[in-house]
Amino acid sequence: MLHIILCLTISLLFSSPSKATVQDFCVADLTAPDTPAGYHCKDPKKVTADDFVYSGLAAPGNTTNIISAAVTPAFVSQFAALNGLGLSAARLDLAPGGVIPLHTHPGANEILLVTHGRLTVGFISSANVPYVKSLKKGDIAVFPQGLLHFQLNDHKTHAQSFVFFNSPYPGLQLLDFALFANDLASILVEKTTFLDEATVKKLKGVLGGTN
Amino acid sequence: MLHIILCLTISLLFSSPSKATVQDFCVADLTAPDTPAGYHCKDPKKVTADDFVYSGLAAPGNTTNIISAAVTPAFVSQFAALNGLGLSAARLDLAPGGVIPLHTHPGANEILLVTHGRLTVGFISSANVPYVKSLKKGDIAVFPQGLLHFQLNDHKTHAQSFVFFNSPYPGLQLLDFALFANDLASILVEKTTFLDEATVKKLKGVLGGTN
Amino acid sequence: MLHIILCLTISLLFSSPSKATVQDFCVADLTAPDTPAGYHCKDPKKVTADDFVYSGLAAPGNTTNIISAAVTPAFVSQFAALNGLGLSAARLDLAPGGVIPLHTHPGANEILLVTHGRLTVGFISSANVPYVKSLKKGDIAVFPQGLLHFQLNDHKTHAQSFVFFNSPYPGLQLLDFALFANDLASILVEKTTFLDEATVKKLKGVLGGTN
Amino acid sequence: MLHIILCLTISLLFSSPSKATVQDFCVADLTAPDTPAGYHCKDPKKVTADDFVYSGLAAPGNTTNIISAAVTPAFVSQFAALNGLGLSAARLDLAPGGVIPLHTHPGANEILLVTHGRLTVGFISSANVPYVKSLKKGDIAVFPQGLLHFQLNDHKTHAQSFVFFNSPYPGLQLLDFALFANDLASILVEKTTFLDEATVKKLKGVLGGTN
Amino acid sequence: MLHIILCLTISLLFSSPSKATVQDFCVADLTAPDTPAGYHCKDPKKVTADDFVYSGLAAPGNTTNIISAAVTPAFVSQFAALNGLGLSAARLDLAPGGVIPLHTHPGANEILLVTHGRLTVGFISSANVPYVKSLKKGDIAVFPQGLLHFQLNDHKTHAQSFVFFNSPYPGLQLLDFALFANDLASILVEKTTFLDEATVKKLKGVLGGTN
Amino acid sequence: MLHIILCLTISLLFSSPSKATVQDFCVADLTAPDTPAGYHCKDPKKVTADDFVYSGLAAPGNTTNIISAAVTPAFVSQFAALNGLGLSAARLDLAPGGVIPLHTHPGANEILLVTHGRLTVGFISSANVPYVKSLKKGDIAVFPQGLLHFQLNDHKTHAQSFVFFNSPYPGLQLLDFALFANDLASILVEKTTFLDEATVKKLKGVLGGTN
Repeated sequence: MLHIILCLTISLLFSSPSKATVQDFCVADLTAPDTPAGYHCKDPKKVTADDFVYSGLAAPGNTTNIISAAVTPAFVSQFAALNGLGLSAARLDLAPGGVIPLHTHPGANEILLVTHGRLTVGFISSANVPYVKSLKKGDIAVFPQGLLHFQLNDHKTHAQSFVFFNSPYPGLQLLDFALFANDLASILVEKTTFLDEATVKKLKGVLGGTN
Repeated sequence: MLHIILCLTISLLFSSPSKATVQDFCVADLTAPDTPAGYHCKDPKKVTADDFVYSGLAAPGNTTNIISAAVTPAFVSQFAALNGLGLSAARLDLAPGGVIPLHTHPGANEILLVTHGRLTVGFISSANVPYVKSLKKGDIAVFPQGLLHFQLNDHKTHAQSFVFFNSPYPGLQLLDFALFANDLASILVEKTTFLDEATVKKLKGVLGGTN
Repeated sequence: MLHIILCLTISLLFSSPSKATVQDFCVADLTAPDTPAGYHCKDPKKVTADDFVYSGLAAPGNTTNIISAAVTPAFVSQFAALNGLGLSAARLDLAPGGVIPLHTHPGANEILLVTHGRLTVGFISSANVPYVKSLKKGDIAVFPQGLLHFQLNDHKTHAQSFVFFNSPYPGLQLLDFALFANDLASILVEKTTFLDEATVKKLKGVLGGTN
Repeated sequence: MLHIILCLTISLLFSSPSKATVQDFCVADLTAPDTPAGYHCKDPKKVTADDFVYSGLAAPGNTTNIISAAVTPAFVSQFAALNGLGLSAARLDLAPGGVIPLHTHPGANEILLVTHGRLTVGFISSANVPYVKSLKKGDIAVFPQGLLHFQLNDHKTHAQSFVFFNSPYPGLQLLDFALFANDLASILVEKTTFLDEATVKKLKGVLGGTN
Repeated sequence: MLHIILCLTISLLFSSPSKATVQDFCVADLTAPDTPAGYHCKDPKKVTADDFVYSGLAAPGNTTNIISAAVTPAFVSQFAALNGLGLSAARLDLAPGGVIPLHTHPGANEILLVTHGRLTVGFISSANVPYVKSLKKGDIAVFPQGLLHFQLNDHKTHAQSFVFFNSPYPGLQLLDFALFANDLASILVEKTTFLDEATVKKLKGVLGGTN
Repeated sequence: MLHIILCLTISLLFSSPSKATVQDFCVADLTAPDTPAGYHCKDPKKVTADDFVYSGLAAPGNTTNIISAAVTPAFVSQFAALNGLGLSAARLDLAPGGVIPLHTHPGANEILLVTHGRLTVGFISSANVPYVKSLKKGDIAVFPQGLLHFQLNDHKTHAQSFVFFNSPYPGLQLLDFALFANDLASILVEKTTFLDEATVKKLKGVLGGTN
């Protein structure tokens, strides 16, 4: 009897609970259009515990490439539960000598956690001041939003780290790819970087750029 | 003649006014999908004065239940005009001895206004400090976002109050219902609360939980 | 023994708790300078339950004036606990025939709750559309940020209502006081409102304006 | 060979780039519904450089009207790339003697840049203090959100200026049009402004209002 | 000569750079008062690369306690560079059988990364639905803001994980400490939780609460 | 008599107006410490109309330098009224052939208005897609936050433009100065950009860098 009364209480206490509590979370429906605040919410009735876990960062990225490094993202496109939650992540693997070249995240600040090996990291402020440090396992470091920064493995063992952002859309602009891996006219690259034509042509060649 | 010129002026001054001013408000189309920032906007041409008024808090909630209390929400699901406006409300009715048990609002801060009777209210901070006060008619009190708090009518007359939140989606997590009114395994409840099995089983029984 | 171990646990679990949890709330130190995000926080060790309750809205405002109405604010200046919490309140008392003349809140959206009597309220959108409704006790209504709106008691009994804002600094710009209760040159008022000189001079006289 | 490896690197470094970087920008799909955070994003694959440029402010507005002035907006409705970017613009043209009458922008702060001629501008604070200044070419001025302000050309040459807002939806509420250019009952206008019936009727007549 | 001209260019291009770029970051001056948006900024001229790195999470917390677990925070109080950056972190160590009991973070969403061992984690939504999953090394999981959640090591090896929050002030309210580790009157705990007196008294005894 | 009653009304209507309305604006006290939300507010009683106007953009910057261009900022450091208002501005002067080299604004989106001459402008997205357009007088263009962009005067007349940002702290990171105008070790620049030693050394020489 008590049981019945109390069960009624739940609905009395809070009418239309599914509607009203939808926004505990808003798992992205990645098939629907995006908005400036993120994707449409998947029907909360279809959300399960599996939606809140992502295993795609468990395996190392392939570092057999010219930078001897790999970035494996867990942004909203990969991990739909991040939609609207103001967080995302990525895994960085750097073989000995590997480097994540100078890049920015236009949309987020970043914390990096070293989980294996050592890294030399740095960023450059708007006042052109470089801040460079050598990190070891267990260290965390922060990189403010939109500033050029890099990670370099200048040790002899594999380095593994994870980065976290305060946006599901941190973005990633890799300087060399932005300059040399597209069809932006070489003359414009030269005029806006002070690099000479030979350098621009060479790096365009290496990185697949044209024009 | 003057009239005609001026009427023209309105449109000259501000082309496509309906488009440009839509975002004075964005009354929710509750039939469309949700986004992290709220629901799609109802066509502003179909919005009337009625959309901006809600009478659902005028009548007392039914307090004939085990907590002798009722919460009547006016969140975006009930009052679509709140969509995007960063506000919502609810009415609390507490019969003598009634209680709104410990709960949190994960998504908003709260102001409470006592409109009839007396209430003892309190919240507990992250530093585990309780802040408890007895309120009388006309008093307002604030409860910071996400902290456990309660309202208790320890007087002999009905207590009526209204609460206001700085989000259309404040959420409401009632501690006892979260712990005991679902199928979360009893062993997990015990291990994560230090409550003994008998207590967990008893309250699961009362509140309709299983497992 | 168990007791001792567990008490240790509290500090182990969360070092420097007072620091880390300060921002559960930030009760304003109104004697310190303001910032764009609000006032400095009062030392949390000196905060008590009394800080979170305000009784200044319990008594009716004095309506013996030309508008037969009174606004009693509970903004951050009056209720320091609101600092940083994104909420504030005010009480409106309107004698029969009383009016809160056309005004805007530049910094917040508003919910109004009628607690006694009746009110006719309205706002005007950017598209110049008026939305007017008659409210009775228990009704709530919303007024979007920055739009002209009014409250009018066109009934024979006192009307009491409370308003809530999603900012501790909603601001209040009363149209007539903005136009006629200062030293803004009459010629500028005339040119920017299309009102004639006689009207401007008369209302400046009534409301204490000069120039 | 190096070329091939590096090109592979781009995709290795950042899987599903188009998805992940959509939110560099979210050009509005103005045919889709609006949300509180803005319009749906146009498919980024269909976005071109043309989307990011707007030429609609290049030509002067028509000032042959009763206020001898014109406002030409570049809000999100006109310039879809502004969606989600927290910015918009407008052009103000004022013939000699022209005026942008008292108005507010409910949704944004404003910077004004004088590009030709001179302007006298002013705003009135919530404390009813007027701040009035005469501006010349090259001056910038700010008007805080939601406060009444005006621009007046009290010189003998055409004045041209551009204004910028920190929202794609600044809104625009022109005082005289809000009061006199709609069907808001004259008696309500009178009671909520202290203007007399003759004045209200006259201005309703001029501005096209009824009732 | 070119060198001299260009060096001049730097200052010409951007006058008063230190001032203008201060807000690349705002390392907290923890000795100054707090505000709702964070602490005062340390003088940027005194900021060095060391400010952006924190090694306090490198060592495991002491799990020799009744919960066989430890939380080591890197909030703004510990890592001043997080001030204003919308991010923080913590390390969780759980011995076999260890548990981080049910708790909430009132001020932030959370991502958890398992770096060693296994964990069973779960949260409960406002709709009282539990979402529980077993995680292995390399998995990430999210917990939405303000909802009760837990981490449990139900395996035979030590479990190590790191959590990240989208606020420098996530807060931490541990349910049992909030209920039983302070002087909140037992009768209030009982009335607001449905727990019986014996249970409340016992847990108050264990956790150091009084009253 | 009426006059007296109404003047009283002003204070009755809104007690302690100066306190309550401070946050119409928060003109920076640039001598006080900064916070993540901006500077302390100047005492509003000392604020005058002059605070809201800035004439520092009226004169052209000196373009007699190697880039034949000048940036003149009106950020919060130059124009204190911008504090807390979410807006700032700058003037760009480009002699024929002048260029604002590739740069980012880490803290804001940007609108550019061409007021004289012609400009070729462009930005590169996170997906490495360049968006380049030729602008003429009266055109506006947007550059999303944190992305590399440039302005180039490839015509024979002086080009003048003004840019506006949705933050008082947009920041400005000029690529070449970030790479070559400081003491960041050449070897780090080489490894993180793929530029060869000769290029790095040459540009360091030109731009004043060391190491």
